[in-house]
Amino acid sequence: MRKICIVVGSRANYSSIKSVMRAVQAHPDLELQLIAVASALLDRYGKVSDIIEKDGFKISARVNMLIEGETPVTMAKSAGLGLLELPTVLESLQPDVVLTVGDRYETVSTAVAAAYMNIPLAHTMGGEVSGTIDESIRHAITKFAHIHFPATQGAAERIIRLGEHPDTVYMVGCPRVDLVQEILANPVTVRNGRLMQGGVGDPIDISQPFLLVSQHPVTTEYGRGQDQISATLEAIKAVGLPAIVLWPNADAGSEDIARGIRKWRERGLAQGLHFFKNLPIDTYVELMARTACLVGNSSSGIREGAFIGTPVVNVGSRQDQRERGHNVVNASHTKSDIEKAITDQIKHGKYAPDPLYGDGRSGERIANILATASISIQKHITY
Amino acid sequence: MRKICIVVGSRANYSSIKSVMRAVQAHPDLELQLIAVASALLDRYGKVSDIIEKDGFKISARVNMLIEGETPVTMAKSAGLGLLELPTVLESLQPDVVLTVGDRYETVSTAVAAAYMNIPLAHTMGGEVSGTIDESIRHAITKFAHIHFPATQGAAERIIRLGEHPDTVYMVGCPRVDLVQEILANPVTVRNGRLMQGGVGDPIDISQPFLLVSQHPVTTEYGRGQDQISATLEAIKAVGLPAIVLWPNADAGSEDIARGIRKWRERGLAQGLHFFKNLPIDTYVELMARTACLVGNSSSGIREGAFIGTPVVNVGSRQDQRERGHNVVNASHTKSDIEKAITDQIKHGKYAPDPLYGDGRSGERIANILATASISIQKHITY
Amino acid sequence: MRKICIVVGSRANYSSIKSVMRAVQAHPDLELQLIAVASALLDRYGKVSDIIEKDGFKISARVNMLIEGETPVTMAKSAGLGLLELPTVLESLQPDVVLTVGDRYETVSTAVAAAYMNIPLAHTMGGEVSGTIDESIRHAITKFAHIHFPATQGAAERIIRLGEHPDTVYMVGCPRVDLVQEILANPVTVRNGRLMQGGVGDPIDISQPFLLVSQHPVTTEYGRGQDQISATLEAIKAVGLPAIVLWPNADAGSEDIARGIRKWRERGLAQGLHFFKNLPIDTYVELMARTACLVGNSSSGIREGAFIGTPVVNVGSRQDQRERGHNVVNASHTKSDIEKAITDQIKHGKYAPDPLYGDGRSGERIANILATASISIQKHITY
Amino acid sequence: MRKICIVVGSRANYSSIKSVMRAVQAHPDLELQLIAVASALLDRYGKVSDIIEKDGFKISARVNMLIEGETPVTMAKSAGLGLLELPTVLESLQPDVVLTVGDRYETVSTAVAAAYMNIPLAHTMGGEVSGTIDESIRHAITKFAHIHFPATQGAAERIIRLGEHPDTVYMVGCPRVDLVQEILANPVTVRNGRLMQGGVGDPIDISQPFLLVSQHPVTTEYGRGQDQISATLEAIKAVGLPAIVLWPNADAGSEDIARGIRKWRERGLAQGLHFFKNLPIDTYVELMARTACLVGNSSSGIREGAFIGTPVVNVGSRQDQRERGHNVVNASHTKSDIEKAITDQIKHGKYAPDPLYGDGRSGERIANILATASISIQKHITY
Repeated sequence: MRKICIVVGSRANYSSIKSVMRAVQAHPDLELQLIAVASALLDRYGKVSDIIEKDGFKISARVNMLIEGETPVTMAKSAGLGLLELPTVLESLQPDVVLTVGDRYETVSTAVAAAYMNIPLAHTMGGEVSGTIDESIRHAITKFAHIHFPATQGAAERIIRLGEHPDTVYMVGCPRVDLVQEILANPVTVRNGRLMQGGVGDPIDISQPFLLVSQHPVTTEYGRGQDQISATLEAIKAVGLPAIVLWPNADAGSEDIARGIRKWRERGLAQGLHFFKNLPIDTYVELMARTACLVGNSSSGIREGAFIGTPVVNVGSRQDQRERGHNVVNASHTKSDIEKAITDQIKHGKYAPDPLYGDGRSGERIANILATASISIQKHITY
Repeated sequence: MRKICIVVGSRANYSSIKSVMRAVQAHPDLELQLIAVASALLDRYGKVSDIIEKDGFKISARVNMLIEGETPVTMAKSAGLGLLELPTVLESLQPDVVLTVGDRYETVSTAVAAAYMNIPLAHTMGGEVSGTIDESIRHAITKFAHIHFPATQGAAERIIRLGEHPDTVYMVGCPRVDLVQEILANPVTVRNGRLMQGGVGDPIDISQPFLLVSQHPVTTEYGRGQDQISATLEAIKAVGLPAIVLWPNADAGSEDIARGIRKWRERGLAQGLHFFKNLPIDTYVELMARTACLVGNSSSGIREGAFIGTPVVNVGSRQDQRERGHNVVNASHTKSDIEKAITDQIKHGKYAPDPLYGDGRSGERIANILATASISIQKHITY
Repeated sequence: MRKICIVVGSRANYSSIKSVMRAVQAHPDLELQLIAVASALLDRYGKVSDIIEKDGFKISARVNMLIEGETPVTMAKSAGLGLLELPTVLESLQPDVVLTVGDRYETVSTAVAAAYMNIPLAHTMGGEVSGTIDESIRHAITKFAHIHFPATQGAAERIIRLGEHPDTVYMVGCPRVDLVQEILANPVTVRNGRLMQGGVGDPIDISQPFLLVSQHPVTTEYGRGQDQISATLEAIKAVGLPAIVLWPNADAGSEDIARGIRKWRERGLAQGLHFFKNLPIDTYVELMARTACLVGNSSSGIREGAFIGTPVVNVGSRQDQRERGHNVVNASHTKSDIEKAITDQIKHGKYAPDPLYGDGRSGERIANILATASISIQKHITY
Repeated sequence: MRKICIVVGSRANYSSIKSVMRAVQAHPDLELQLIAVASALLDRYGKVSDIIEKDGFKISARVNMLIEGETPVTMAKSAGLGLLELPTVLESLQPDVVLTVGDRYETVSTAVAAAYMNIPLAHTMGGEVSGTIDESIRHAITKFAHIHFPATQGAAERIIRLGEHPDTVYMVGCPRVDLVQEILANPVTVRNGRLMQGGVGDPIDISQPFLLVSQHPVTTEYGRGQDQISATLEAIKAVGLPAIVLWPNADAGSEDIARGIRKWRERGLAQGLHFFKNLPIDTYVELMARTACLVGNSSSGIREGAFIGTPVVNVGSRQDQRERGHNVVNASHTKSDIEKAITDQIKHGKYAPDPLYGDGRSGERIANILATASISIQKHITY
């Protein structure tokens, strides 16, 4: 009976690992341990810990580790606080494997803690490329991890080139696509028609063409967020379709984006815009399936977008070099560039589904591998 | 005027970077900032911060970050504490480049802090291979670093294979060899003949053949240290030469090694042995130049040993796969294996110097590169 | 030349100590050191560190120590984070005296850090009584402090009864009253008439009667904040005057109050209300001088209110037992009670000034005492 | 069923609370939760967590919180680290009452954490007077505590004078005396005659007159420890009796005392001395019952000494003003003073037992009170 400890640090994190949690919980040879940390515990970010419990999972431990400020300094310190506390929790839980997701600061904390404590580390979403500090974090975590669960063939190859032994690299697809598939099969949110009761701003009729905007700060371009979101909002206005706009995540620079949005509203330019702080993943996926075009720099456009076939305009450097399907068109942070790309995507319309980031069965595969893989705690680079 | 911030976390660390500190301080276009952390501040580990000041360097900040226990848990937590506090210090110092050494927990703290704060990170001793958790740490730090200063050609090639851009990889040799060269040119310690006034145990005549023993815990083999040091001590006894034995460093498992040594002494088996908690680097280098054979798992045997020509018996997995010269013979953790290897090395005698790990001019090279290199804060893997 | 180190943790903190900072800076025998911590560094709370610098003070160090969540857990952890980091900063600044204000978590961190480090601790606002956890904190800090600067005669007597030596207790008045006096002498904000350009909600004509509402969470009644603010808002509505409503501070339970306010707005009940997240102290004082009645549980009604003569309705337990002048009427958390009290206060109109909490010269007195007092680091209870 | 959470931070701590733990565990209406922290987890300090488990208690959580250095800076930071982590643990354990012992840094962490989290705090050993920083800590913790368990009548009165409500103050005696009584009834250690197999130094025949020395650093006299222990050792030498000497505790300044002892040994002056790093409490109590005189500044001479009747020479300021029986004679830190006091005590011989600090039934009393007391979470000073 292997104890698999999963650390969930945010709403996005949960969506990326939920199908694995379910498969681990259902597996006869595995026991699920769950640590909820960082923004997963916070009202301000939708308190996904409550949702996790409502979904039938038991949370083994909670660690508040987010230091206020959303600056480069506080991001680094938050990673430090997590790394300071997680060993106490892991010592008490005594897991056989720690599973961590992606490339965020709680991922760093988790990976380093497990590594020092000689607990085998499994990692999903490794081997991908992107911009921001995430790029460094992701590959560094690969160097700490003992079992790799990349989402794409390209990512798997990259992990092996990074000197990881091929026997430890399992191309399983992205567990987030499992969730997408399930949601698309049962699109509750849109059907029940209450979407516009949440959020603020003008009501939008989603049975008509609309845009979806999700733009986050680029940590390595700290300080430029306000200009960046302004260019996007200007382009949206020029295109003339109504738009659903999501609030940025909690990375360093978040406040700049938020300020840009607030100023836009204060200048009275927000006609036809409706704003949400957070959207449940199911609502978000359904909107991705309906939107005329998703605009911004969220990885969802590339990752889930491929499977869904969403037309996407990817703005700026945040997703630089991330493996992508035909559904994505890039644009720089200028109004004209963004506007043209959106217009093109609207013309094209929806794309055919592309299994680039998974086929909907990743969770199950990961659980089976975790149950049986033999793991060597002493890593050796292959060259 | 670039501000170069160097983080020194231990006595060993200082020896590995001192020549760089001198060269940075002397460089007209560079300003040296110095942060002393972890065991560098502690009496128990020779308080190298005092030595640093006596050597004419100004310490900009001090961070006590070592959590007692020397277990996997406390090592992880210590890394966390460093990562929690270093951002506060770095925010106040505002360096242009942070330079970090090697692969210890304070190195992790430093690297992650700098990375999140968008401060370019330079790294020495990257690209090498070894056992223990150091192996993972070292390559992970390479993935955070913006400028690489590997010590050997093999290490430089490995860094490039890890996906770092060749323009950021400078093969400069190991700055520790700079120090070795300087010490050998002016061997004060041995000349003044007061060595045996320090430490405890039987006095040893170092003008006659003697062994030198330096064996540290292997973090990924936590719990086996007492057996490991016992095998070494039995072999030493069988060989019959007097020996200078060094106390282990502060890694997880240190207490096991220490207990093994204490029990050996309590059992009355310590005839002909003299023990030191710490030795100044100059004394240590001079002993390496004189010893009939260095026994244990310190990287010094491989690194400085190559340049000095010291016969070395490398025991166990701690230095697994580290690039080495002809002066090193490996042995497993058994008395017979170690004894045979020592006997062979004594027969062979001193080796010819090998510039594998440097030629004595690394510090100067590094300072010049730091003064002029153009640095891009956004990293991209090359494949 | 004594180095006086003042730790400022919030906007309110700064108002409470600014006149002391000025007097210390101006004193020939004193040197001012300033540490900005906690919400003083945060955009979300008006980033008073920027204002401090604009006011001509140099900030010696900054420590981000606020852990997100605003729950009892995160308040305790924030105090811990401050206590973990402040010693590093104090070791580097080497002050002769640390001066701390009031009863907040950064005050705890500061007091314990200084006490353990054998740095004499001075404390303003000690000896007062109130509700919430502040009550315990305040008296505990008195037990750590070496020099006491109570604001009132009652507070001074209480400190002495707590076993502090009378020679260490200086009744100086509250430095915040210094600031109030200065602002009232030069009421810029109201004169320039731009107040309603900030905040959100209906514009209010402050040349006509209006209410001022400032209600914070009661940490020891965690979870009841939403009901508490609702009762107040209902009473306001019943009274029928327009009102300026301030957002709650960052204590545990803040989110409950905020939610109560948001729901009120969402229910469309916010006619005649104008909301501010923060108000500069000068604006706030001017509003206190003009309002028909201040409603809520802010200590300002009692403290500055006495000097200004503001009619105040003090709601609930937060200020329980705090020494107060004739200008304050109490009310429980029920609509009827609050409504009646407001109506009575409006009838009464403005009160005569009462120097209960100070006469406007406290800062100067404190600086003079800090410059000359002899301090014994070893405390002894007097009984 | 009330959950009583006890935080144990050291060997001494455990002896002071063990009888309470037993009584809580045995009580039908109470459930015992145990958190082992700080030096209780460390080999270097006798790892009392292992002993606790051997004694049949279950440890609910462990928190490594001791930052290396034993300086004022690291003591403060250790308190901070405890305060940072304990909330996470307390949130998971959800106790009804937290019980904390005495006046050490883990006590501060515990008290502040519980206070902020609105968990009622019970405190033993409050109200006593002494020197060092303990004096401030102890009374500050009283101001946080909701239930007080003082050991003496004088302490109880002092707590009430500190403004605590008399209904919350229970004079129960010191639980440590419970343990002393039990040990004296069954003196195993001395009977089995193996004492001199532990420790280092000359063997001592404890059936003949001998001295017992236990001297700790005085935190508020940081830096003077080496001189202080030297004076004591010189006096011991002059008296001429053999002596058992205990190593100092882990407070700031510990290293100074240790250095003083080491130098004494290195100077060859340690004839007739036998040294122990730690002694089990039972051994220590038995030695207190046999020694001709206990010399130093441990509170045990005053506290347990009264009950046992041990002749005690109390040196220096550490126990200043602590309530004491006739068995204690004071001496300053000079050889002559100490020597004279020892000689006088030897002449006097053993004293009659004095129940000043308890009668052996404190644990039981505390458990009964914890089971039934009604507790108000909002504290109010009584004046």
